[in-house]
Amino acid sequence: MKKQNISDAVIRRLPRYYRHLNDLCNKGVIRISSHSLGVKMGITASQIRQDFSCFGEFGQQGYGYNVEELRSEIGHILGVDQSHHLIMIGVGNLGHALLQNFRFSQCGFTVDAAFDIAPSIIGTDINGVHIYHMDELEDYIRAHKVDVVSLTVPKSIAQDLADRLTALGIRGFWNFTNLELVSSNPEVKIENIHFSDSLLTLSYRIVNP
Amino acid sequence: MKKQNISDAVIRRLPRYYRHLNDLCNKGVIRISSHSLGVKMGITASQIRQDFSCFGEFGQQGYGYNVEELRSEIGHILGVDQSHHLIMIGVGNLGHALLQNFRFSQCGFTVDAAFDIAPSIIGTDINGVHIYHMDELEDYIRAHKVDVVSLTVPKSIAQDLADRLTALGIRGFWNFTNLELVSSNPEVKIENIHFSDSLLTLSYRIVNP
Repeated sequence: MKKQNISDAVIRRLPRYYRHLNDLCNKGVIRISSHSLGVKMGITASQIRQDFSCFGEFGQQGYGYNVEELRSEIGHILGVDQSHHLIMIGVGNLGHALLQNFRFSQCGFTVDAAFDIAPSIIGTDINGVHIYHMDELEDYIRAHKVDVVSLTVPKSIAQDLADRLTALGIRGFWNFTNLELVSSNPEVKIENIHFSDSLLTLSYRIVNP
Repeated sequence: MKKQNISDAVIRRLPRYYRHLNDLCNKGVIRISSHSLGVKMGITASQIRQDFSCFGEFGQQGYGYNVEELRSEIGHILGVDQSHHLIMIGVGNLGHALLQNFRFSQCGFTVDAAFDIAPSIIGTDINGVHIYHMDELEDYIRAHKVDVVSLTVPKSIAQDLADRLTALGIRGFWNFTNLELVSSNPEVKIENIHFSDSLLTLSYRIVNP
């Protein structure tokens, strides 16, 4: 499987392919052409073939793709079969919403623990996830495998916290703080979610119809 | 100002430019070269110049960009000076988190009302936004200007609700339901936020370092 110099744009389309293929599986669709998949996703068939060619050959010319096989291949490329261990720091409304509603397991993640400073929730469980006091964070990380930390804390403490976690060996951050987290360590992978980027994109489309 | 056939990739970079320029303004930076801005954002100087050329000329060759002017220009292109009217449907944990913490006004939006079915919150205000019963939704929309509806409702009701709202004249949707909302009406602008796409991108980067 070729996997060199994959562009950011291609990488960002992979989860979209995976999501659409999941939908198709759930609808019982067995095969799909690159043309039909493209129409569904708003991209061209040639873009799809070009994207997939980065990872090898998935379809057979003229027969389209087997939906279940392609879903499984792309899922494997994305690592959904890896069972990543995630802990959440910050269980305010957003953290609570993620714990209650977001299907981590469908992305290959288990949420092993959550941390906060609010006495009202420490010691409780939300959707099976135990909430610890922040003071217990370092001991927890030293004793457990943690692949990713989800940051749903105030923006003001995000970078310091991330630096501290990086020093403790954390190499993955799912960052909701609206601060653009940076790391000089290339091993540290950061995914920043910026709600404002999304709302401003919508604003642009409304203003420039 | 030229604004034809702007690619989706360029449009999605505009909010990122705006965010980084806001940061620079807040730090008191007066001028920045396309090279320095590119380093900060992880893109090339030539990409930046190419993106901006879609909208006219912002800088002066050899002098870089005036940060405040560029911020203002891009903000205008994005419509942050338009004062869009938004209502929120669904005030669970996620809706609550957005009302409490998300700075709508910095994106040019005012949140005029929110709607839910939970008796415990109907009639209350969250961060100055009044929560109405869903039964009042249609009357509200008929009586007020509503540019965008933020959907933080269960996935199962999202498409029906969006169709109903479209019939009532709503043309903008900020959709957090993890359902890929679609509309056959080209006037309807939809921005779907998929947390799973973000987490799977992170997973990919961890698995393929």
